[in-house]
Amino acid sequence: MDVRDRHPNLGEWIELIERSLADPESEPILNIDADDPHYDAVFVGGGAGGRFGAAYMRAMGGRPLIIDAWPFLGGSCPHQACVPHHIFSEAAEELDRMRWFSDELFFPKFDPSRASILELVRLFLNGRASAHAFMNWQTKEQLDVEYVLNARATIVDAHTVTAAGRTFHADNLVLGMGARPVVPPDVPGLDRPGVFDFVSLVEELGYEPTRCVIIGGSKVAMEYGAFFHATGCDTTIVSRSPLMRTRALHHVDEDLRQYVVGGMRKRGMEILEGAHPVSVNGDGARGRARSATVRLSSGEEVELETDFVFLGLGERPNTAQAQQALGIDIGANGRVVVDKRMRTNVPGIYAIGDMIDGPMEMFKARKSGVTASRNIMGEDLEFDFSEFPDFLHTTYEVTWVGLTEAEARAALDEVIIIQMPPYVEGLDTPNLPLPCAEGTMLYAFSKPELSGFQKLVVDGVTRKVLGAHHCGYGAKDAFQYLDYLIHRPEGLTIDELGWMNELFLNPEHFVQLSRLRAGKASLTHL
Amino acid sequence: MDVRDRHPNLGEWIELIERSLADPESEPILNIDADDPHYDAVFVGGGAGGRFGAAYMRAMGGRPLIIDAWPFLGGSCPHQACVPHHIFSEAAEELDRMRWFSDELFFPKFDPSRASILELVRLFLNGRASAHAFMNWQTKEQLDVEYVLNARATIVDAHTVTAAGRTFHADNLVLGMGARPVVPPDVPGLDRPGVFDFVSLVEELGYEPTRCVIIGGSKVAMEYGAFFHATGCDTTIVSRSPLMRTRALHHVDEDLRQYVVGGMRKRGMEILEGAHPVSVNGDGARGRARSATVRLSSGEEVELETDFVFLGLGERPNTAQAQQALGIDIGANGRVVVDKRMRTNVPGIYAIGDMIDGPMEMFKARKSGVTASRNIMGEDLEFDFSEFPDFLHTTYEVTWVGLTEAEARAALDEVIIIQMPPYVEGLDTPNLPLPCAEGTMLYAFSKPELSGFQKLVVDGVTRKVLGAHHCGYGAKDAFQYLDYLIHRPEGLTIDELGWMNELFLNPEHFVQLSRLRAGKASLTHL
Repeated sequence: MDVRDRHPNLGEWIELIERSLADPESEPILNIDADDPHYDAVFVGGGAGGRFGAAYMRAMGGRPLIIDAWPFLGGSCPHQACVPHHIFSEAAEELDRMRWFSDELFFPKFDPSRASILELVRLFLNGRASAHAFMNWQTKEQLDVEYVLNARATIVDAHTVTAAGRTFHADNLVLGMGARPVVPPDVPGLDRPGVFDFVSLVEELGYEPTRCVIIGGSKVAMEYGAFFHATGCDTTIVSRSPLMRTRALHHVDEDLRQYVVGGMRKRGMEILEGAHPVSVNGDGARGRARSATVRLSSGEEVELETDFVFLGLGERPNTAQAQQALGIDIGANGRVVVDKRMRTNVPGIYAIGDMIDGPMEMFKARKSGVTASRNIMGEDLEFDFSEFPDFLHTTYEVTWVGLTEAEARAALDEVIIIQMPPYVEGLDTPNLPLPCAEGTMLYAFSKPELSGFQKLVVDGVTRKVLGAHHCGYGAKDAFQYLDYLIHRPEGLTIDELGWMNELFLNPEHFVQLSRLRAGKASLTHL
Repeated sequence: MDVRDRHPNLGEWIELIERSLADPESEPILNIDADDPHYDAVFVGGGAGGRFGAAYMRAMGGRPLIIDAWPFLGGSCPHQACVPHHIFSEAAEELDRMRWFSDELFFPKFDPSRASILELVRLFLNGRASAHAFMNWQTKEQLDVEYVLNARATIVDAHTVTAAGRTFHADNLVLGMGARPVVPPDVPGLDRPGVFDFVSLVEELGYEPTRCVIIGGSKVAMEYGAFFHATGCDTTIVSRSPLMRTRALHHVDEDLRQYVVGGMRKRGMEILEGAHPVSVNGDGARGRARSATVRLSSGEEVELETDFVFLGLGERPNTAQAQQALGIDIGANGRVVVDKRMRTNVPGIYAIGDMIDGPMEMFKARKSGVTASRNIMGEDLEFDFSEFPDFLHTTYEVTWVGLTEAEARAALDEVIIIQMPPYVEGLDTPNLPLPCAEGTMLYAFSKPELSGFQKLVVDGVTRKVLGAHHCGYGAKDAFQYLDYLIHRPEGLTIDELGWMNELFLNPEHFVQLSRLRAGKASLTHL
């Protein structure tokens, strides 16, 4: 299907994408200027990194080509990963509120029979092609980027890629081939029906689970677990590490962690920390999962009944083809080794997104793609993603950036804490309706212990904000800017923060809390 | 009641406040060092401005005293204004979602008989003393500020105030006596039962309204109207000006306005613009309101049946006592005239909060109090609140800062617009599930036209962000920082914005939308 000289509208794109997904024999989608097969870069993979990288290169006047096996751009995010996760987390928040307020105020008695994982998966599946269509449309019509979709790329050498029966030449290759969920090889039964990860959940779920065992303690484990449980699917998390205290997450403040994990337990989730999966059991070799055997931290083995096992053990990048064809270096963690310009060890070969080290998050995917492009186009630009704001969802939105209280105390003499509920002993904080803010007003006025937690970590000497930590709703967007402000060379002092114009009842009270202390030459806790 | 040497906990504070509110003869609450009646400043009024001003002065080492007629600090915000408004707006958002999704997904069939204005008013009333108690506690125990509560202050002269039978001397007076809703003198029947403003709504409502007529087009009119309507109380707004196009609101982008006001109409609200109230009618002179007569923009008079009339005509400051006792200048708009240091025309007399010009918003109240204190303590500090981020609620959260598209086009040669849905003709935007973001995921996937609107206005030459406009959920907090960034001397370029670390699915997509264009030397719309 050559769309180069056509301008499909969104409806036509949806139809083309859905037809292509349904038929394994469907033809490639070509949006290329066939007269000239030579490109500044071929982006192998049109996910977040490839799409943003290519768009940036084109905006700079370069000529990129994206090749993707899927019939759409945007990669796994809108197809299997962040977008469904966010729908599920929004449903979890809503279901959680409807449960706590069951038969109170304007909330009817909660009817657990209405809440269905399967139905929400289907809601997502029915709508996901819209986002795909938009990205195909935008990338062609607004961003003027060439692409070949629904065609698997074969890397021939560092300057040659074939796809859709054509050969493309490029000065550079940018590898953005994504990652896939980890399946541990040493746990028998993980190949049974009834065992899912976040990919197979949306692609394959065909029944309504009633009990869930999650293996793993990653963000995905917490996020999907909180969602499953909120629907009424009793959920047990089996994690080697304490939740939120895994190597993959940095800067997790202990008070924040306790509020968040405590909140999961308060809602009835079972969380087995220090526990290891032994096997997933069912009838015969291919029967659906009926239980999971788990070794507890005590050493005892228990069998957990379940009709739904979910793996949340992280992801590993898809590196095999590129390693074989190009000889790029892969690190001990399975990620492609790159420098801060996203260059691999092979000249002209860049790697981006989930293929490289660092958080498998959107900002890193997109900015690593852009970094590759800007360097290819002659800029000398480094992208350092060692510090970044982070988040996860339970039935809450949890966001953090910068140092934890413990990290700050370990590094500095004078650390000041400003938080809600306040940093004092002996106050009846569970019954205190604070923080009271947009998104937790109803909780604050009837179930105050559910109204969230927030903490600011400040250097008592320089008065600079070192870290910010939040559990509630509506603050995540702000952390993009807080991250920028506290990591700029001059940082952000409590005095600058306290002089900002708050939009009351702001989800994080950092502006006004800072202002209540900023008058002090010698700062104190609040 | 002398609490100076006692440390009431929150429960004891709640009891004392509720007892005091219930009994007009209750005694004053004294938290003062009685040995020395001389203060750097007496704050007449302990609302947001007085409390933050006094706290800042104390933090700087000064000695402030707060006097308030209410038995609690914090003023009208937690008692009658912003806090109930935010509870009601949160309920409105929730009710709106439950109506749109009635009998879909996990949402039960919406039962309008459960939604009650009266019940939500009572929820607020039952809980409001907690916030009061916390502010009394915090101001005494953490902020070390002296106060006299439950005692009306009498201004004797510029250095003398009496209250609770005592005389207090001060080098300065800071007037923070608040404002009260406007009642137009020329509309017969506004004194009938059944006519409310935001104060009497929480203090006096004793029945469940079924039809509402709102007189006025202020933020309060829109916010309370959207709430009333969401509960099932059919609401008509009678406004002289088009909604959001009043003098009190600046920088309202027309596309944003149309999305917001269109959204109110889409939900069935009747909005009569260019209409004037003629009378509120009922049985006899004192019978409860049964209808409102309104002159339409056409000149025709209509009678609207209603059992509930709500005034949303703005507020006027309480200036009479101070004007009489001190001779301070009052402007034509009824506000106390102050300079940028919050100084009135009388030496040593400052005015703050809702008494002075500018938006009656929390940031101005608190920062004007702090400005007075810092100047009194010898700093030379001006507070310019001519530019600020602003917001309102309908069933959405609506937030904006900086220039509108029209303002920018009037001032500059090259204005670039970056928005969602995109800035193009002919795209099927009502069915486009964009913006798709935290807080609107369920809408995006089943009712895309409800998923919000967002616009960034950029100077095409300097590449600086001039304005940002958002309707959705979860972005309000971010606008505190956007306001700071775009108004700092160097501004915020699209290049800096596009290089930030977004927290996907960020409620405003400004970071990534900017990044898609930042590569261009010559910017274009998106």
